[in-house]
Amino acid sequence: MTDDIRLCRTFQTAPAAVPKDDSAKYLVSALEAEGFQAPDWLVPDMEDGTAPNMKAEGLENTIEKVPEYDFPGEIWPRVEWSYEDAEYREKGRDQIDQLVAEIGDEIDGVVVPKVGRLEDVERAAEVVAEAESEYGYEDGSIGLSIIIETGRARSDLREIAKFGEDSRLTGLVFGPVDYAAELGGRDLGDGMPRWDGLLEALSNEASAAGLVSIGGPFDDLFKERAGLTFYNADDYADQVEHEAQLGLDGSWSLYPKQTLQANTVHMPTPEELERDVSKIERFNAAKAEGTGAVTLDGQMVDEATFKNFRNTVQQVRAIHEMRPGQTEEYYDEDLLERTLDLELSYE
Amino acid sequence: MTDDIRLCRTFQTAPAAVPKDDSAKYLVSALEAEGFQAPDWLVPDMEDGTAPNMKAEGLENTIEKVPEYDFPGEIWPRVEWSYEDAEYREKGRDQIDQLVAEIGDEIDGVVVPKVGRLEDVERAAEVVAEAESEYGYEDGSIGLSIIIETGRARSDLREIAKFGEDSRLTGLVFGPVDYAAELGGRDLGDGMPRWDGLLEALSNEASAAGLVSIGGPFDDLFKERAGLTFYNADDYADQVEHEAQLGLDGSWSLYPKQTLQANTVHMPTPEELERDVSKIERFNAAKAEGTGAVTLDGQMVDEATFKNFRNTVQQVRAIHEMRPGQTEEYYDEDLLERTLDLELSYE
Amino acid sequence: MTDDIRLCRTFQTAPAAVPKDDSAKYLVSALEAEGFQAPDWLVPDMEDGTAPNMKAEGLENTIEKVPEYDFPGEIWPRVEWSYEDAEYREKGRDQIDQLVAEIGDEIDGVVVPKVGRLEDVERAAEVVAEAESEYGYEDGSIGLSIIIETGRARSDLREIAKFGEDSRLTGLVFGPVDYAAELGGRDLGDGMPRWDGLLEALSNEASAAGLVSIGGPFDDLFKERAGLTFYNADDYADQVEHEAQLGLDGSWSLYPKQTLQANTVHMPTPEELERDVSKIERFNAAKAEGTGAVTLDGQMVDEATFKNFRNTVQQVRAIHEMRPGQTEEYYDEDLLERTLDLELSYE
Repeated sequence: MTDDIRLCRTFQTAPAAVPKDDSAKYLVSALEAEGFQAPDWLVPDMEDGTAPNMKAEGLENTIEKVPEYDFPGEIWPRVEWSYEDAEYREKGRDQIDQLVAEIGDEIDGVVVPKVGRLEDVERAAEVVAEAESEYGYEDGSIGLSIIIETGRARSDLREIAKFGEDSRLTGLVFGPVDYAAELGGRDLGDGMPRWDGLLEALSNEASAAGLVSIGGPFDDLFKERAGLTFYNADDYADQVEHEAQLGLDGSWSLYPKQTLQANTVHMPTPEELERDVSKIERFNAAKAEGTGAVTLDGQMVDEATFKNFRNTVQQVRAIHEMRPGQTEEYYDEDLLERTLDLELSYE
Repeated sequence: MTDDIRLCRTFQTAPAAVPKDDSAKYLVSALEAEGFQAPDWLVPDMEDGTAPNMKAEGLENTIEKVPEYDFPGEIWPRVEWSYEDAEYREKGRDQIDQLVAEIGDEIDGVVVPKVGRLEDVERAAEVVAEAESEYGYEDGSIGLSIIIETGRARSDLREIAKFGEDSRLTGLVFGPVDYAAELGGRDLGDGMPRWDGLLEALSNEASAAGLVSIGGPFDDLFKERAGLTFYNADDYADQVEHEAQLGLDGSWSLYPKQTLQANTVHMPTPEELERDVSKIERFNAAKAEGTGAVTLDGQMVDEATFKNFRNTVQQVRAIHEMRPGQTEEYYDEDLLERTLDLELSYE
Repeated sequence: MTDDIRLCRTFQTAPAAVPKDDSAKYLVSALEAEGFQAPDWLVPDMEDGTAPNMKAEGLENTIEKVPEYDFPGEIWPRVEWSYEDAEYREKGRDQIDQLVAEIGDEIDGVVVPKVGRLEDVERAAEVVAEAESEYGYEDGSIGLSIIIETGRARSDLREIAKFGEDSRLTGLVFGPVDYAAELGGRDLGDGMPRWDGLLEALSNEASAAGLVSIGGPFDDLFKERAGLTFYNADDYADQVEHEAQLGLDGSWSLYPKQTLQANTVHMPTPEELERDVSKIERFNAAKAEGTGAVTLDGQMVDEATFKNFRNTVQQVRAIHEMRPGQTEEYYDEDLLERTLDLELSYE
């Protein structure tokens, strides 16, 4: 049942071009990342992460570097777009066209930012469809993920997600900086709002439509205390854990250490895995003995409870398929073996 | 104006059959409950509360036991169903058919779990309509309440509630365990999310459509401290109070002590009742003296404020109608008398 | 770009008639308010703020007093209305008719309370359109703002706001007292809920549709401690700051000191203004030097970040246009000068 899971614990954006001697430095470093620093989705960023005068170079870097690596995760370049500016949509159209033309079989889809209402998302999907058809790719083979970062997209979130039920739309990603600017949100000392209503709706609508939901970037990468500047591990982990609790599938990463943390949080702990594997094993054993209700640790196991255990196992199987190095490092051999062997049917 | 209130402070599920000598033990005990342990709605549960191999016996128990008692509250059996599984819908159809055939005049409606989008709720309503017509009951006499526990039902909540404006749909009940499993929510040490956005929407949509809204079950029935295991009264009360604050009409109970607590919380305290009865009495007296604005305790009483006082009185009247023993126990005789006598018109 | 901002930091209701020797006392005092006590929108209140037997006098006061002052802000009388009561709608129709007939060129629009679903809002808009046409005003010249205070209006909030995209609908204002009464919300000791989901949706839908969003009234005007009764400055400021953080455009005021506070909170602090003006100045200087990405304080300035700085400057410009006394008092001369001179284009 691994098919049920579209794995995206980490949505790591890497600037497609930076003003350094090697302008593809960060892109290449993400393509080469190993262990827990390797993201599930790598997003070569030609939008806000790349300077206006380096967009063309970013596109070239992406087209040149991505095919050089046998990246085990998914590749989702982010192009330019704006629901309120035709010029940006034209740029996005050109970037999508070139990406599909040159590396259409290397990418899983494109990420389109700053979409507006449903009609604008449909327009973006149509641009992908045209490139796909132009270069002979099968219908639906190039996905579309979007950044939810405008009042209009939030307003139409339900309708947009429903459009995703039978279209190339794959992922819904939160973009809090643009979103706060659109709404006029203000930091009066306690930071910006967390937008709890939006996050809950994102998790729900993505689940209802079978889409992937991903939290927004966290850019206070470093903090300073007592003279020392250090990586802000705590605050990022808090955000990622909050997203995991709400049922978001993954978190946005801007940095290898963030990828390591988000990969870890969106992965069952060894204790969770042991607990749920053991519950399913005992459930299966009890079922084999008779037809009655199965009670574990004093609680009757109904189908809803069972589904919670199964989620854990399926997530680990999906990770193992994409990144076996991570599962082998994180779980002991015996537990991993049991996870892969388990029978997962409730009936 | 008691007609305005559809009383459901407590939605108590009781397993319709359990693996004991007397398989109807819990059902009978709920039917016989007295005082504050008697629920407003009793839900003989043939779904997750009854083991797969005892479903038939649960249905028989319900059909046999319910007519033996003159239960003062409402009876709402929960049947099987699933928006994603035709087999469960077929089981639900058979259960509904038999319930209506055998005890159609003893039940107020049926509770259908795991509904999906609006179309699925309409499908469930149609099944009830068919049974109703088949056995000669008046159109709309058998109600439908649903458990909101899928991403799809949450996504369509507004449309589902609007369908309830002029249909047999009566109650919207939250089902957090299935819901968390659908969304992939995780307990990372602080418990599952409380789903504040959903609860607020549930209260709102139910109010807008004239439906009853009910919170989800709380299953940490017992806790242990210093070697003693005891009923977890505090945490359940916290949940019920939060639901009451948001305007939910009632709470889910799994246990007589929970019923006692939820009945109590969803009932105005004697202080609240005294305060609001007295405000209306003074308002009525002031109105009788002249046509001017009425000011009480320094605040002008506008219609919005008045409505808040009236809510309190109407709720007590509805409880008194269904469970006079509870109002007579809880309020002193004089206060109750004044509550029942009050003129409630603002104009 | 000041055109983008429809300024409404403060929505101050003043009873149109009170039972005093001078029944227009509070209305006149609001019309004469100076400095930070002068609201952006003044709302002569003929609804819940004026006693039933003084409605006619309130209308007369409004028609007589408003033209006597050259009020620099906007004038928005609140009339009677109810989605569930035709009699109130008839009263509202008469009040709107007379206001437009007598002072149609002095008012910016009317505030209609207790609206229900979209159809009811359209009905209110039609009433305004009829008066406008009857008395020869240009189509759309008389605005409509509504109080969101029923379950139905909250349920249809998205559709209502979309109706506002190309209609006279201008502002969405929260009304928590009626709202709590409709939903049956209860104060069990911790106060009423803050309705976070509603507030977040209000901010979003207003932004998506280009409308103004305003928080609800706060009526614990005074508190008592150690024998002294004093103005409750802290709790009101907390509410207003929360609203500002969420991106609401303004707050409801019932009292001159509340107006002073809400005007202040919804205005960038001198530090915010200095910071954002300086960022834009440095951005502009860097752009003038080359075509590369602009990095300020170690962060690349993308369009989203830039929009946040620009919001600050545009808000101050809009305030300066309506209330130059406030900006001149609050900011030092040099900073204000720089704010007004700045070039605001990202490209």
